[in-house]
Amino acid sequence: MKIRNIFALCSVLFFFFYGYCFAETKISSNTQVCLGCHKLVTAGIVEDWKNSMHSKASPEDALKKNAKEKRISAQSVSPELKNSVVGCAECHIANNGEHKDTFEHNGFKVHIVVTPSDCAKCHPVENEQYSKNIMSHAYGNLVNNSLYKDFANTVNAIYTTEKKKNKIKPASELTEQDSCLYCHGTKIDVNGLNERETFMGSMKFPVLSGWPNAGVGRLNPDGTKGSCSACHTRHSFSIEMARKTDTCSTCHKGPDVPAYKVYSVSKHGNIYASKKEKWNFDSVPWKIGQDFNAPTCAVCHASEIEVNGKIVVKRTHQMNDRLPHRLFGVPYATAHPKSPDTSIAKNKAGLPLFSELTGEPVVQYLIDEKEQKERLAKMKSVCSSCHSSSFIEGHFTRLEESIRTTNEMTIEATKLLANAWKGGLASNKESLFDETIESFWTEQWLFYANSVRFASAMAGADYGVFDNGRYNLSRNIQRMKDWIKFLETKKK
Amino acid sequence: MKIRNIFALCSVLFFFFYGYCFAETKISSNTQVCLGCHKLVTAGIVEDWKNSMHSKASPEDALKKNAKEKRISAQSVSPELKNSVVGCAECHIANNGEHKDTFEHNGFKVHIVVTPSDCAKCHPVENEQYSKNIMSHAYGNLVNNSLYKDFANTVNAIYTTEKKKNKIKPASELTEQDSCLYCHGTKIDVNGLNERETFMGSMKFPVLSGWPNAGVGRLNPDGTKGSCSACHTRHSFSIEMARKTDTCSTCHKGPDVPAYKVYSVSKHGNIYASKKEKWNFDSVPWKIGQDFNAPTCAVCHASEIEVNGKIVVKRTHQMNDRLPHRLFGVPYATAHPKSPDTSIAKNKAGLPLFSELTGEPVVQYLIDEKEQKERLAKMKSVCSSCHSSSFIEGHFTRLEESIRTTNEMTIEATKLLANAWKGGLASNKESLFDETIESFWTEQWLFYANSVRFASAMAGADYGVFDNGRYNLSRNIQRMKDWIKFLETKKK
Amino acid sequence: MKIRNIFALCSVLFFFFYGYCFAETKISSNTQVCLGCHKLVTAGIVEDWKNSMHSKASPEDALKKNAKEKRISAQSVSPELKNSVVGCAECHIANNGEHKDTFEHNGFKVHIVVTPSDCAKCHPVENEQYSKNIMSHAYGNLVNNSLYKDFANTVNAIYTTEKKKNKIKPASELTEQDSCLYCHGTKIDVNGLNERETFMGSMKFPVLSGWPNAGVGRLNPDGTKGSCSACHTRHSFSIEMARKTDTCSTCHKGPDVPAYKVYSVSKHGNIYASKKEKWNFDSVPWKIGQDFNAPTCAVCHASEIEVNGKIVVKRTHQMNDRLPHRLFGVPYATAHPKSPDTSIAKNKAGLPLFSELTGEPVVQYLIDEKEQKERLAKMKSVCSSCHSSSFIEGHFTRLEESIRTTNEMTIEATKLLANAWKGGLASNKESLFDETIESFWTEQWLFYANSVRFASAMAGADYGVFDNGRYNLSRNIQRMKDWIKFLETKKK
Repeated sequence: MKIRNIFALCSVLFFFFYGYCFAETKISSNTQVCLGCHKLVTAGIVEDWKNSMHSKASPEDALKKNAKEKRISAQSVSPELKNSVVGCAECHIANNGEHKDTFEHNGFKVHIVVTPSDCAKCHPVENEQYSKNIMSHAYGNLVNNSLYKDFANTVNAIYTTEKKKNKIKPASELTEQDSCLYCHGTKIDVNGLNERETFMGSMKFPVLSGWPNAGVGRLNPDGTKGSCSACHTRHSFSIEMARKTDTCSTCHKGPDVPAYKVYSVSKHGNIYASKKEKWNFDSVPWKIGQDFNAPTCAVCHASEIEVNGKIVVKRTHQMNDRLPHRLFGVPYATAHPKSPDTSIAKNKAGLPLFSELTGEPVVQYLIDEKEQKERLAKMKSVCSSCHSSSFIEGHFTRLEESIRTTNEMTIEATKLLANAWKGGLASNKESLFDETIESFWTEQWLFYANSVRFASAMAGADYGVFDNGRYNLSRNIQRMKDWIKFLETKKK
Repeated sequence: MKIRNIFALCSVLFFFFYGYCFAETKISSNTQVCLGCHKLVTAGIVEDWKNSMHSKASPEDALKKNAKEKRISAQSVSPELKNSVVGCAECHIANNGEHKDTFEHNGFKVHIVVTPSDCAKCHPVENEQYSKNIMSHAYGNLVNNSLYKDFANTVNAIYTTEKKKNKIKPASELTEQDSCLYCHGTKIDVNGLNERETFMGSMKFPVLSGWPNAGVGRLNPDGTKGSCSACHTRHSFSIEMARKTDTCSTCHKGPDVPAYKVYSVSKHGNIYASKKEKWNFDSVPWKIGQDFNAPTCAVCHASEIEVNGKIVVKRTHQMNDRLPHRLFGVPYATAHPKSPDTSIAKNKAGLPLFSELTGEPVVQYLIDEKEQKERLAKMKSVCSSCHSSSFIEGHFTRLEESIRTTNEMTIEATKLLANAWKGGLASNKESLFDETIESFWTEQWLFYANSVRFASAMAGADYGVFDNGRYNLSRNIQRMKDWIKFLETKKK
Repeated sequence: MKIRNIFALCSVLFFFFYGYCFAETKISSNTQVCLGCHKLVTAGIVEDWKNSMHSKASPEDALKKNAKEKRISAQSVSPELKNSVVGCAECHIANNGEHKDTFEHNGFKVHIVVTPSDCAKCHPVENEQYSKNIMSHAYGNLVNNSLYKDFANTVNAIYTTEKKKNKIKPASELTEQDSCLYCHGTKIDVNGLNERETFMGSMKFPVLSGWPNAGVGRLNPDGTKGSCSACHTRHSFSIEMARKTDTCSTCHKGPDVPAYKVYSVSKHGNIYASKKEKWNFDSVPWKIGQDFNAPTCAVCHASEIEVNGKIVVKRTHQMNDRLPHRLFGVPYATAHPKSPDTSIAKNKAGLPLFSELTGEPVVQYLIDEKEQKERLAKMKSVCSSCHSSSFIEGHFTRLEESIRTTNEMTIEATKLLANAWKGGLASNKESLFDETIESFWTEQWLFYANSVRFASAMAGADYGVFDNGRYNLSRNIQRMKDWIKFLETKKK
């Protein structure tokens, strides 16, 4: 082979490579118009998009991939979306007839808030699954549940004393949006248009309340629920970010749901922290051993996982289909609710809960044992990619035990509180959450029982002991007893 | 082209590359003497320095760069610094006449503590800006403020009971240096010389009190304030480390100033955690979209940022020039103080605060609305690189609301405390911080109000709710009320 | 040189490279049988192993390395281990005569739990050193110490009220394994065999109690103590993971032992977080400046460190040989215990502690001043690789001071508690840990004194002030005093 042959070969390779990278990235003429201005005014997100899969392949290209590696779940897409990459226009103009936030913008009908329904044009299966995910109902599960709403009100209120009387001023909408609804999702309303100077001259834009927000249960201006960008962060929408645990930390790190913290100290979290730089977070399907060596949140709860060329679990955006129990956010852990809308629950006492205050589950709202077993089997199939049966059984037996024992410790706190109410030391009339002795009770389940269960579920060491764990469960009972004594002394 | 031609080309490229890397690294003869021993006795920092920009370019080289990419702000440097790279001698011998810690060391007059004034030989603009940064006054802002000094004393003291009477023994200087002053900066004094055996035989070294320390407001032996190595960690002094959020965590992670924690769970923090490996933290100016995809602390508060070839905000080491408000470390959030020396404040009650205890701001010490607007506009110009106006306005409207509401919640705690004092249940005579009911009050503003405001400012989710957030603000009021009842019962 | 020569050269290089990588990886026939199934049924750990050093070199190869770079400490290994790489069989079949968990498995006698004694076939020095590490006795140090056992019982118990009387139901074994023993190590017992369906048909496996567990003081079925995989995570067993701080976080992050958190905010931790991607965590010996630029946990406590070709400290798995003091887990910091078995301690009052409740150390169990000095000297020799003597002395003087002052603050809390017991406000009869006033005392030393000492030892900023630091030490004394007043009022 002569040098000139090498050169020729290089040229050929170059053109193949060039062709591979750029030949198919056809940007639609609409998106080109958007980019004309927005690469100047919001350059950062344009760069994010340029680095994203969306800017590199058209739905048509995506459809050609083999079943396993396919990243869109549509069988076909509408002709106008087919041949160009997914750019500004493809998301912000699609479905605009259904969007209350649609407005005239340089000759286009554009909407600001991109919703699961917009994404469903290419990702319908994920949209369908997500609608069964309890997260998609996170807004209503909070504000339509009288108990949780009472709690949120107490948390966000302004306390004042007027004429020696305690007053609680309800929180403003702005506060609610900045507090619980940051994660649960806001309700986005459109309140007309306002005019604003831009570098293109005066322009009109919709006035949105509840904006900005990327909460998992956001009520969107097209009537849909949720925000895909809660996990697939704008404007790269990458599978990589959704697979990394940091993304989940936004809503799952506080004392009410310390999943991220528990994971971080678990052996799985140790391995992730130590080795993740060498993993491939972008591969579909995601291959144990080749792409990664320890689970992230996504591995157990959402991703499609392959071992030795065999799919172990299918991708799910429902997530709870690998979860036999509901572990957090409730006074007592129970079987998982059947419906993602948890505001429908009602126990015998009339409270919107899946259990009585005595701990007994309200079974008609909950999945049955058979379904629990099937869900657990799915979860265990992920575990068995690395662990033996005796390891896995030992692990889950402990989780069962900690569900039982934390529920018992909540029963005790509940009895103490009920006695305090009965004895007139506190009152459940106005609210269940506005007195100190009630806050001890709330923390028993919302923080400590919760943390212990997470620690058992993920082998999270001190989050089951001293860091809001069993130590706190026990100490809290001790404190409740003393506090009640002090309240009694005062009353005499 | 023949093989020998390829070889020739390689050789030429090699020499170009070699020349580029090494031709200009002229180490001064003084520094060569230093390195002779110190590459043996403190090898680690010599390696750090070797990897640093300081070991690779002389100020002369730095001056030749085009305006945008220049990393020194001096228009010219003194001839003896000009032509050699910045090594040991260039920093530890410079200005030695002004350094009380200068000592004879192997024939050189050397000082141990390198100060902003030493760095200012090449970086005068940064030094000048930093002197307007509230951080440069952090030592005096603590010890010259009678209220904060009272607080620090109570925190660091030793509690004992002697003859059934409570005693508070003041903290030692060592404790103070190890506690508050670790971040605020110590006062470094020189107390003569002592003799020590070294591998070079017996040598004399200055005895320093307050050493080691790299606090932001350190009082240096040359009369200057601050420590550049607080952020530009010794001995690499890299822009990369100062731009990474981990560096800020040293002083900005505790419950009194949870900025790092809030950032970590924000979407910006999620993106940083997921993608930072692919970013360029060393580029000047720092280009949104090309070098990085989400802000770190430095992006919003300090760095010079470029979008599409246009500088969006100029580099600032004053930092508060993008900050309309003072959010933390104070009972009530107010407009930002005019002077970086905050110990000059005095309210009507004579307390060294920028607000009355009723929340009303003491306006003569604070920047006016016009200045607030200008600062906010600078901050927003960073935001607009990725976000639309409606997004940005929505975000900052919530911050305003949380400033208002957290201040209200502090007012309520203050009223409760004032009543306790008035009723003889506690005393503000000895200290405002040495009784339990007072600690509830302190935590209301120092921990919880603070955390809520940070969470609003950076979209930090649970730090505005359950993790020292609004939940804690409300619970704290409930507890204060009960505690007061218990104190009353006891008094009867 | 002609093209064909280049080709020839490439071929030669390829075969050298191939030879280097694969020629020596002789997998034993036993291991090949294991892999035959397990690459299918537990594919993840097989991949981990494939990426590990164990799969790449035989002990014979390892013995040939020069002394400094050797990764095994055996002078020779038994012939059957010599010539093949360390695979499944080499660990899970070795020593099977001594393993109670050995069982028949497809014609092999296999044991599940690999122990320090198994690892000692190649790593005897590490095993010997680790047996002197207090961690190897972590199980007995908890359950054989009546005081700590009392504490653990109180933490893990179920609290109930029966017939208006408080009852404390002891924790189940499952709870204990999931709580304290997760880190301390469980006792693994073999309870016969059970039969299970597998993809190979029905098979019998041992029934293990206390499994899974990788606690540092695990009681193994072969009578040994500990688990090497606590730090050298299965099945890569890498030196890299053991050197990264994340691994230590599993057991050293909670409020009782916040080492990881303290490190993270220290300057050392900042540098690690910012620069670790560029470090070499796999090199033996580990070279300051070349391989890494700031210490991780391992650097100071375990690793063999080289500077300028000279070994500064030798590798130790004893760890406490660089530690003059015992800083945590005890009411009072003292000199380090002589024996790793701390359950042997007894003070004058008969309590299993290394100090009287008044703080006075029980010296006969503790290393003497000479030994303390030698241990400190070792630690300081690591520091001196980067820091000057005055820096190091200043640092450790502060640690001494914080040991002294935190002990004083514990004395005060102890006095308050003793008075409460004396006055009948609480009782030390049943337990020292089951009343609120006692929990204040426990937290004084277990959380706050502890955290302050760690913060001093590693320059950890707010963990010595507001984050379980001196602020909490002081506040806790204030609260204890008020609580005692309330208990007194109640009693009247």
